[in-house]
Amino acid sequence: MSANSLGHLFRVTTFGESHGKAVGAVIDGMPAGIYLDMDAIHKQMSRRRPGQSDLSTTRREDDIPEFISGLFEGKTTGAPLAFFIPNKDVRSQDYDALREIYRPGHADYTYEQKFGIRDHRGGGRSSARTMAPWVCAGAIAAQILKELGVMIYAYVSGVGTLSMEKDPMEVVPADIDKNAVRCPDPAIAAQMAESILQVKEAGDSLGGVITCVAKGIPAGWGEPQFGKLPAQLAHAMMSINAVKGFEIGEGFALSTKKGSETNDAFEEGGKTSSNHSGGVLGGISNGMPLYFRVAFKPVSTLRIEQQSINRSGEAVVFQADGRHDPCVVPRAVPIVEAMTALVLIDLYLLQQARR
Amino acid sequence: MSANSLGHLFRVTTFGESHGKAVGAVIDGMPAGIYLDMDAIHKQMSRRRPGQSDLSTTRREDDIPEFISGLFEGKTTGAPLAFFIPNKDVRSQDYDALREIYRPGHADYTYEQKFGIRDHRGGGRSSARTMAPWVCAGAIAAQILKELGVMIYAYVSGVGTLSMEKDPMEVVPADIDKNAVRCPDPAIAAQMAESILQVKEAGDSLGGVITCVAKGIPAGWGEPQFGKLPAQLAHAMMSINAVKGFEIGEGFALSTKKGSETNDAFEEGGKTSSNHSGGVLGGISNGMPLYFRVAFKPVSTLRIEQQSINRSGEAVVFQADGRHDPCVVPRAVPIVEAMTALVLIDLYLLQQARR
Amino acid sequence: MSANSLGHLFRVTTFGESHGKAVGAVIDGMPAGIYLDMDAIHKQMSRRRPGQSDLSTTRREDDIPEFISGLFEGKTTGAPLAFFIPNKDVRSQDYDALREIYRPGHADYTYEQKFGIRDHRGGGRSSARTMAPWVCAGAIAAQILKELGVMIYAYVSGVGTLSMEKDPMEVVPADIDKNAVRCPDPAIAAQMAESILQVKEAGDSLGGVITCVAKGIPAGWGEPQFGKLPAQLAHAMMSINAVKGFEIGEGFALSTKKGSETNDAFEEGGKTSSNHSGGVLGGISNGMPLYFRVAFKPVSTLRIEQQSINRSGEAVVFQADGRHDPCVVPRAVPIVEAMTALVLIDLYLLQQARR
Amino acid sequence: MSANSLGHLFRVTTFGESHGKAVGAVIDGMPAGIYLDMDAIHKQMSRRRPGQSDLSTTRREDDIPEFISGLFEGKTTGAPLAFFIPNKDVRSQDYDALREIYRPGHADYTYEQKFGIRDHRGGGRSSARTMAPWVCAGAIAAQILKELGVMIYAYVSGVGTLSMEKDPMEVVPADIDKNAVRCPDPAIAAQMAESILQVKEAGDSLGGVITCVAKGIPAGWGEPQFGKLPAQLAHAMMSINAVKGFEIGEGFALSTKKGSETNDAFEEGGKTSSNHSGGVLGGISNGMPLYFRVAFKPVSTLRIEQQSINRSGEAVVFQADGRHDPCVVPRAVPIVEAMTALVLIDLYLLQQARR
Repeated sequence: MSANSLGHLFRVTTFGESHGKAVGAVIDGMPAGIYLDMDAIHKQMSRRRPGQSDLSTTRREDDIPEFISGLFEGKTTGAPLAFFIPNKDVRSQDYDALREIYRPGHADYTYEQKFGIRDHRGGGRSSARTMAPWVCAGAIAAQILKELGVMIYAYVSGVGTLSMEKDPMEVVPADIDKNAVRCPDPAIAAQMAESILQVKEAGDSLGGVITCVAKGIPAGWGEPQFGKLPAQLAHAMMSINAVKGFEIGEGFALSTKKGSETNDAFEEGGKTSSNHSGGVLGGISNGMPLYFRVAFKPVSTLRIEQQSINRSGEAVVFQADGRHDPCVVPRAVPIVEAMTALVLIDLYLLQQARR
Repeated sequence: MSANSLGHLFRVTTFGESHGKAVGAVIDGMPAGIYLDMDAIHKQMSRRRPGQSDLSTTRREDDIPEFISGLFEGKTTGAPLAFFIPNKDVRSQDYDALREIYRPGHADYTYEQKFGIRDHRGGGRSSARTMAPWVCAGAIAAQILKELGVMIYAYVSGVGTLSMEKDPMEVVPADIDKNAVRCPDPAIAAQMAESILQVKEAGDSLGGVITCVAKGIPAGWGEPQFGKLPAQLAHAMMSINAVKGFEIGEGFALSTKKGSETNDAFEEGGKTSSNHSGGVLGGISNGMPLYFRVAFKPVSTLRIEQQSINRSGEAVVFQADGRHDPCVVPRAVPIVEAMTALVLIDLYLLQQARR
Repeated sequence: MSANSLGHLFRVTTFGESHGKAVGAVIDGMPAGIYLDMDAIHKQMSRRRPGQSDLSTTRREDDIPEFISGLFEGKTTGAPLAFFIPNKDVRSQDYDALREIYRPGHADYTYEQKFGIRDHRGGGRSSARTMAPWVCAGAIAAQILKELGVMIYAYVSGVGTLSMEKDPMEVVPADIDKNAVRCPDPAIAAQMAESILQVKEAGDSLGGVITCVAKGIPAGWGEPQFGKLPAQLAHAMMSINAVKGFEIGEGFALSTKKGSETNDAFEEGGKTSSNHSGGVLGGISNGMPLYFRVAFKPVSTLRIEQQSINRSGEAVVFQADGRHDPCVVPRAVPIVEAMTALVLIDLYLLQQARR
Repeated sequence: MSANSLGHLFRVTTFGESHGKAVGAVIDGMPAGIYLDMDAIHKQMSRRRPGQSDLSTTRREDDIPEFISGLFEGKTTGAPLAFFIPNKDVRSQDYDALREIYRPGHADYTYEQKFGIRDHRGGGRSSARTMAPWVCAGAIAAQILKELGVMIYAYVSGVGTLSMEKDPMEVVPADIDKNAVRCPDPAIAAQMAESILQVKEAGDSLGGVITCVAKGIPAGWGEPQFGKLPAQLAHAMMSINAVKGFEIGEGFALSTKKGSETNDAFEEGGKTSSNHSGGVLGGISNGMPLYFRVAFKPVSTLRIEQQSINRSGEAVVFQADGRHDPCVVPRAVPIVEAMTALVLIDLYLLQQARR
């Protein structure tokens, strides 16, 4: 296993820590002859970037990927596409206090148990910042998918106890970024924003839910038995920091129903009259829109006193004072989109090989 | 990608179809020098086997795996451990009507779209029967894990709208098989059984939820960034037929809460006072019990008329008459346990390599 | 690593031991919709089979693969193609004396050092018999390649100090099997046969060389940097029991020459006027014929007394009396062809995915 | 397949082109808690570096790897170890003439056939410069192996028709770098140097052979059937630019001998009285020294007129005038050592997982 790689034919290998010199990735299997759409890449990077609004951390990073391999006169060559994103606004001293402390809800303790050593600065390798390269790689995958007619959009459908009930198929992608929460229902979005500011004020945090849709996938993507589309998606989504749940189509709600209520009847041409399954049958895309939901736990970093221990195992009281998001879901929207694109491009290329 | 393989250092490659000669698997990376606990294997196989009770299909299979490689005088040798399970009670003629029809909710349509050909007999490769070898491989993994002090148990916690609220930590494994539903609360189990028999009577089916617990996992299992324990588990569970959702720890419920409610405070020795996270931090086991829930959609095969199409794309009315379970979760319990064991053994071996 | 698997998109996973129940393999990634050419498979199997002539062991096996998965009405379905070949003529008692002895030149000692246990019967997993499934899988790959216009043939070009100097391009494939040695020059073949019978008489053995040619490969197969065609071939050939050397094109001889003597000049259309390189440039096929040579050490099993040790580390004198080939190269010809086909089909499918 | 990655548990993914911004690599699976021996890394880099002597190209590069991930306070953390080596002395204009021409013996034609596009500057991704990161990764692997008691050394044993016959076991590693050829026999080395200068003068080039030895490997490394030590080595060596042949132990010479001459008799303790096999039996290390030979074709770039074609398929006469080595083997010595170390560390870690 190369645990820092994702995908098979479009394979992304990541590197970097929060407070090291850079984060980045290598894409092996990048198709040749493609002009990268740098605007699309920069747009997604800026959607993930910290400091976008008062709902997120004030850490500021330009987050412009620098490509160092795989491009020739602006086009991909089939060589590995490598890029890195320098870490600029690192205030490692903010983290000096953490050298000896295991923060509750964070990976400090488990990294040290696993590796016997830990880069405590900003969470090191476990930092959410290490997902910035995922967004860049995903934007590149999305560019290729777009040419194939596949469009992906994600949005915030839940923040704490607030949720948006709108049918995912009816969301207008252009509405998503009309507010800082990235919830396409402006009324709910306003409530969500207020809720986030309240917990921020209190030094607390909130969880949330992201819904993602991909339209235009032809039938046939997904590889039984262990490369099924929902399984690959679940793997990718559960790889995102703070994600604790995944469901495709109507997901957990399906478990409470009868088959007569949930089977999607076929219509002429192969479409189905309903889409409870979320666009897959037997782990393979069926030509209907794909949709799924991803659950995020609340951010673990709180400006509230918490019980914890230090590296010597002694009880300590810990209270964070770094720069942190009170709720990650608005900034996680492009990450969910990126991981979706990375899963789909890989299953597309695998299906290409079969023809 | 070898899509019919799971795992990296304990790698299971599966083969077989519902109505072919056999289903089976090859385990590459099987540790040497181990006497297989055939009783444990047979027990798990019989828990998955059809025809156990009036809640399941009447198809009868002994399901005794025959080992053809990797054993010498009863012990594993480090060579690939290969086994197959003959398909005995196949009534392929039951399926003749399906040659031209795409059953709603099944993989008939997508397999044909993907591969251009389809073994229609009993679902072919997409049949639940192809998971029988997973159970055997999982029982072998579980045997090794048991010697390491890791114990896994799963049970039915939901059938349709009925659910059992008991704390997963307090379930007594011995109670699980005391009823045919495999729900360790006898009162709820009785209601579930009745509910299943009702839908069976009506030719309909029901979904359900399985909860799984693994105790005794030391801190340090799981490989960031893309070999995280929850991500590997999600992948494995979403590979199971009919699974539509996965959540670890408190899962989706965490998304509705505040960080001050969900962070697990460390106590001396590294334990946490609560376990909202379900035994993982940053994708790595933290030494606390692992628990998660898996959502199954209702069985797609109904003895009720449904709208569908045939291979020519023409509308047809379809009504099944084969032997089928009205609710899969009781028989899926050993499958969930097996997949859990397969994920854990692989992450254990990967962690071994690091030392 | 799954060490018993070869290939990426056409992935062969093998199992079985010499004196177990069967040897076999699973092919994951088998293209769907293909009628297997059983005659071609059986022909290659019979070319590898023991007991073909007085130059080889007298062990007799029909070696007819039995397919247990992946076929429906004679056609492949895209499901894993699994087959096994029963071990029939096993005289395990011939090997009882070997339980405690490490045979010189064999894998007895290293298997026991590695795994802590050893199936001593006929070499167990290290037996040449375990390559029978490679031949079957290779014949299937060769069938697909043939439809793409790629033809592979191998032949014996050296036995002991005897060698055939004929240009590999001018060998007529139909001549290869005209003698038991599989050397297409009848005069040299007769000398080789005599040489083999002499060492057989003496209880000794001989090494040899196999040359392999593949014509019709289009330019573009091979994946820099670590999936280069010569590197994949070298890996595949060095996986064959008793192989100690590999060279492509003019190989080692090129190391003794000047660039002005060895560069292949391009001609219009992309062909080259010579083919010193053996059909590859930069690890990628260039459209010219591929050719390479494989060196086999002499068979290690001798009916001559040799110094060795037993499992207690004590000196013993060992003399074999089982059934063995005095020279493996005649029977290794179909194995070399099979491994070539397996490498080529995989690189073909990878190149397909790029388009 | 991720073709730009090598290894399984110590996995190196490379990137970069000759005239891009940098070449580099990511090591996934780097053990944690190790202080990198930067002196050892720099030493190996400088041995591969161009411009070391008048036997090599005059291109000058410092070739100091810059680490951007995986180190914390000088120690590895278990996070991916990423580094890059900037391309400084690039004179891309030297290559303008090559944009339209396919150089004989080079990968120009095949890259363009494969990818449909080619970075012509200095060979782009096919340049020998892209192996600089291999040397850095190999030096890191060698550092770990050294602590395990494994020592690797390679040297030039042949240049053109000149060869050194000394027993590889008796070479004194300290003698290797006493001359620019890296041949440990000073008399032969002087002849080789003269021979190289002669062909340089003539605008021609020479091939050569490198012999490599690894001492201290315990019995048990290597994974049957397709992860055998010689097969992994052959794959790694044949991945090196210009390599056309590989043989382990006595290699091709073994094919000309009898079993009674080539079997290595076991002595008490498991050592063998001879080592014709080169330290492996059945693909697994047997505790004896490993040795093998690697054949390099002459450098393809000549300052002599050659027939070729341009991208339009028209005949052209081509004469190189860039900076090039007349013979690569002196600078390839650290590359062979690096690839050996990368193969061995991976097989070591795999064996660790088995225990």
